[in-house]
Amino acid sequence: MRQTDGSPRELKKAAVLVAGSWGTALAAVLAANGHQVVMWTRNAAQAAEIRDLHVNSKYLPGAALPENLTATTDMAEALLGARLVLFAAPSSAMRQVAAAAASLLEPDAIIVHAAKGFEIDSLDRMSHVLAEELGRPLETIVVLSGPSHAEEVVKQLPTTVVVASEAEGYAEQAQDAFINSCFRVYTNRDVIGVEVAGAIKNIIALGAGLSDGLGFGDNAKAALLTRGLAEIGRLGQAMGASMMTFAGLAGVGDLVATCTSPHSRNWRAGSLLASGLSLDEVLEKVGMVVEGVRTTRSAKSLAARYGVEMPITDQLYEVLFQGKAPREAVESLMLRDRTGEL
Amino acid sequence: MRQTDGSPRELKKAAVLVAGSWGTALAAVLAANGHQVVMWTRNAAQAAEIRDLHVNSKYLPGAALPENLTATTDMAEALLGARLVLFAAPSSAMRQVAAAAASLLEPDAIIVHAAKGFEIDSLDRMSHVLAEELGRPLETIVVLSGPSHAEEVVKQLPTTVVVASEAEGYAEQAQDAFINSCFRVYTNRDVIGVEVAGAIKNIIALGAGLSDGLGFGDNAKAALLTRGLAEIGRLGQAMGASMMTFAGLAGVGDLVATCTSPHSRNWRAGSLLASGLSLDEVLEKVGMVVEGVRTTRSAKSLAARYGVEMPITDQLYEVLFQGKAPREAVESLMLRDRTGEL
Repeated sequence: MRQTDGSPRELKKAAVLVAGSWGTALAAVLAANGHQVVMWTRNAAQAAEIRDLHVNSKYLPGAALPENLTATTDMAEALLGARLVLFAAPSSAMRQVAAAAASLLEPDAIIVHAAKGFEIDSLDRMSHVLAEELGRPLETIVVLSGPSHAEEVVKQLPTTVVVASEAEGYAEQAQDAFINSCFRVYTNRDVIGVEVAGAIKNIIALGAGLSDGLGFGDNAKAALLTRGLAEIGRLGQAMGASMMTFAGLAGVGDLVATCTSPHSRNWRAGSLLASGLSLDEVLEKVGMVVEGVRTTRSAKSLAARYGVEMPITDQLYEVLFQGKAPREAVESLMLRDRTGEL
Repeated sequence: MRQTDGSPRELKKAAVLVAGSWGTALAAVLAANGHQVVMWTRNAAQAAEIRDLHVNSKYLPGAALPENLTATTDMAEALLGARLVLFAAPSSAMRQVAAAAASLLEPDAIIVHAAKGFEIDSLDRMSHVLAEELGRPLETIVVLSGPSHAEEVVKQLPTTVVVASEAEGYAEQAQDAFINSCFRVYTNRDVIGVEVAGAIKNIIALGAGLSDGLGFGDNAKAALLTRGLAEIGRLGQAMGASMMTFAGLAGVGDLVATCTSPHSRNWRAGSLLASGLSLDEVLEKVGMVVEGVRTTRSAKSLAARYGVEMPITDQLYEVLFQGKAPREAVESLMLRDRTGEL
């Protein structure tokens, strides 16, 4: 795409914790925008590969990363002087990573996260975990979400995302840092909606993968997505989100991208489950974190806490953790006894 | 899928006008439910093929149609005694077919249509065209829509659709006629919303095909669908529809199915346009009616009439009728200058 952003950007140091596929892709965007970017990872070989070869061969094979994107295993080095810190750890590791970062952050650093899940025991949203561990006001934490396969972002294919913070100014600073001509960034104030949508859509993607794996076709998958969007909306609304968010990029946009693309790990995990593999075999085969599996547990608890009906989550829970046959689960969803649509 | 409808169904004669792919698939559903179904088509060879061989080789190649689905070129014969009449003509032929049927209908026949478009000059919705030509109250006309590729419906893959009539009782009778264990039918009162969503999504599918044909990827397509849904909603709301409909099967469901499946003619037409073929070449290659092309014209006029912003429609209009390069159109959509999402 043509470069359209003519305005000079204030160059800053940014840090990205950790070096999975999505963190790496977002680090590449920041670097492409002229920021000096340091990724932090525990894995010394991965850090050396990113720093010396500008490649992350496990998580984004084939992608050439920018020269001004480097990496370290020393978190203090990564965070020193960083004006924007992106937390891109899996939801299960977020609290631990944040706790380690807390005392090393610059006081005025903008805090952004790009994780899609809830903390498993507390059921906390990721912005809440970060605010707590970093000792920052909740309303200053920014979440970045939207339909954005990492594999396409590093190829500079056109992508649109949302950044949300409850307080004005924070999402806007993140927008300034990330936006460019192929990575379009929109602001939103509904952090709850963006976080709930990003997490729950992974459950729907598991279901879509199941349905596709069973050969149920595009009509069935479209029905599942439609009900999935309603399920996301019901939980989100109960938790205080705005319904408009679910009609936007972080809602229906991310849901569509995740349920209909071979890039999606959650979709892939579902389709492998449908082939008869066990959950352990599936997770080994996918080889990266499949957030939807944990999120199914969290969402089941959240549904109970907020008194919300989540039939897709219920069926996935039975398939993942109680040995229900995938075909039976998808059939239960298709044959639910309803007559009026709404 | 398992048969779950244990209740005996009152067997009736049903007529289906005309014998395109969608009409034929819906006729097969009615026949599978035990109705005596007669299709009407002008094409004698097609009528003979359906009647004698139970095949519609042009529109649904490879599908074996039920024995109790027959066909005729005599409209009076098709309509005599028919308790349900399904109008499945393209939107451009609907008025003509309805005018021919008007005097031949049983007075108590339920009128259902499954067309997705507006009348080109009047910009009328299809239910309006039918009510006018058949001399029936508008609120008794039923529209059937939703995510439903004909190719999957004839294979009895699980499919969900919506039937809507403004007056209670009519959609419910259509629901009784069509519903079975793999074809799930839900009722709705928002005829305007269902008709607008069904028509406009074909424009978005053309755009999705353009984007895919240009290799822009799944992130870009998901963004296009998200904005497409907003565009459908803006026009629908201005015309009097309920926003809830766009979050349902006839809205987001049909949009997803049409934009992400190789079965969709509109998506296919868009992807062929992206390859550099002219509109005429594309239409010849697809070989069936591509409703989205006409609908782009109608929607452009409706947007002006109702004072609604429809950027995707505008870009498609320029590509289809004013020679704009597809790449330029998709780039214009991706790079629209906006900062807040909503």
